[in-house]
Amino acid sequence: MSPRVVRTITDCRAALAGLRAGRRVAFVPTMGALHEGHLSLVDLARTKADVVVVSVFVNPAQFAPGEDFERYPRDLERDVRLLARRGATLVFAPEVEEMYPEPLLTRVAMHGITDDLEGARRPGHFDGVLTVVAKLFHIIEPEVAVFGQKDAQQAAAIRRMVADLDFPVEIVVGATARDPDGLALSSRNAYLSEAERREALALRSALGRAESLAAEGVADAAPLLAAMREELSRHPGIDVDYVALVERDTFRPVDRLTSPAVAAVAARIGGTRLIDNVVIEPHAG
Amino acid sequence: MSPRVVRTITDCRAALAGLRAGRRVAFVPTMGALHEGHLSLVDLARTKADVVVVSVFVNPAQFAPGEDFERYPRDLERDVRLLARRGATLVFAPEVEEMYPEPLLTRVAMHGITDDLEGARRPGHFDGVLTVVAKLFHIIEPEVAVFGQKDAQQAAAIRRMVADLDFPVEIVVGATARDPDGLALSSRNAYLSEAERREALALRSALGRAESLAAEGVADAAPLLAAMREELSRHPGIDVDYVALVERDTFRPVDRLTSPAVAAVAARIGGTRLIDNVVIEPHAG
Repeated sequence: MSPRVVRTITDCRAALAGLRAGRRVAFVPTMGALHEGHLSLVDLARTKADVVVVSVFVNPAQFAPGEDFERYPRDLERDVRLLARRGATLVFAPEVEEMYPEPLLTRVAMHGITDDLEGARRPGHFDGVLTVVAKLFHIIEPEVAVFGQKDAQQAAAIRRMVADLDFPVEIVVGATARDPDGLALSSRNAYLSEAERREALALRSALGRAESLAAEGVADAAPLLAAMREELSRHPGIDVDYVALVERDTFRPVDRLTSPAVAAVAARIGGTRLIDNVVIEPHAG
Repeated sequence: MSPRVVRTITDCRAALAGLRAGRRVAFVPTMGALHEGHLSLVDLARTKADVVVVSVFVNPAQFAPGEDFERYPRDLERDVRLLARRGATLVFAPEVEEMYPEPLLTRVAMHGITDDLEGARRPGHFDGVLTVVAKLFHIIEPEVAVFGQKDAQQAAAIRRMVADLDFPVEIVVGATARDPDGLALSSRNAYLSEAERREALALRSALGRAESLAAEGVADAAPLLAAMREELSRHPGIDVDYVALVERDTFRPVDRLTSPAVAAVAARIGGTRLIDNVVIEPHAG
């Protein structure tokens, strides 16, 4: 059954008033251009609640100046068709003017978790994400919200925002979906040529090097980072943005693996910027 | 009947789950040291909802460095006794550690409305207010929240935060309560000596001068501001902090009365900083 599509905050709240009636609501925020990664989050949401709301909103506030807001892929009809197959209940797809009828004087701001990595390279990105997620939480009032581990720093920031501001929402983070060859799914993969797509596999293989070394008992950050950099350096088409090993919750750099850490990488391939990460557990032995 | 008093977020949510059951909840945030001003907001809340929740929390985040956080009056037993007489349902009185178990990395920030007047003189004050109000809204999830016009800039900021972030809360602003001689009620009036209290009446009389002139048809800001300053200058014990005429919603300075504006004044009397304001309508003629 096709999900109902609403375009305004008023319609969204009215639809939810009817749907809720004591049932749990799960929410999956997206920017559309849906792929199996998003859809796996919808599947996860369905295991957590009776009603699944998906937002499709390309949020200008989370694009830094000069980023790809204009050319970001948009195809709501296709998105709704895909969501119908996965049992989403309601799609909230507002226009920019509906979400930002006048300039926002208020924003949700964070420091610490969001200072480095994506935060340092994409000015205003995380404040834009946190602010729109706060708005969406207030519009949809979900019991559960589902985010992807692919955006690991975002997931950590959202968890902290929810804890700091006491949002009555449980945050669930779903695993990164990958193509069979290991490439993390991303709406921005659509920008890649065939040759660039092959080069992009180096992100996953670099992370794999760190995983393997950690499994062999290497716990110091320096050799793990060096191995990732070395792997990426073999691919001349890849322009490395960062390689990092950070605490999962705080995103502070770690010198040595003692608790689960995030190995993260960002790189440009042609004109396309991609990110990927894996959670690395400290060696049991 | 005495309201139930809860000290933790968990207890507050549990109590509300029982109380709510389809009934409307109104919320009155306070820092305690309740006076007739607060209690009139509780009365107003009772006209709007079946369940009235009052928070009593001296929020350290909204005191600027060097302000009176430590000596701010606290007497929860007296506050609860007063609230019992006015029919409050639930009192949420958390300790600082309950509201801020670890350093907040997230804050609600505003610009524009909060740049000048109180915002310029109390660094961090409004972010501290907005952040704690966001937390309290998420804990209590009221349908209606009631604020006092006494803190006119705060009321404008809260209204804008709610609009910008789509909080599902109706904001109601109650009139400033005054002693029979016109002094605006404030928990900080407790700091005044008898002589200082007499001097403090100049704030209200200065605002009255602006009101009278406006009623006579004076619409330019300059003479209205001059009259207020002149009135205050007659009182050597008063150290004027600011005198302003601003738009009610944006708190931008107005040059001429064309829509309802806020005439606002802040001054120190001895060691005590007081504020007051009136809404001035443009002359009908």
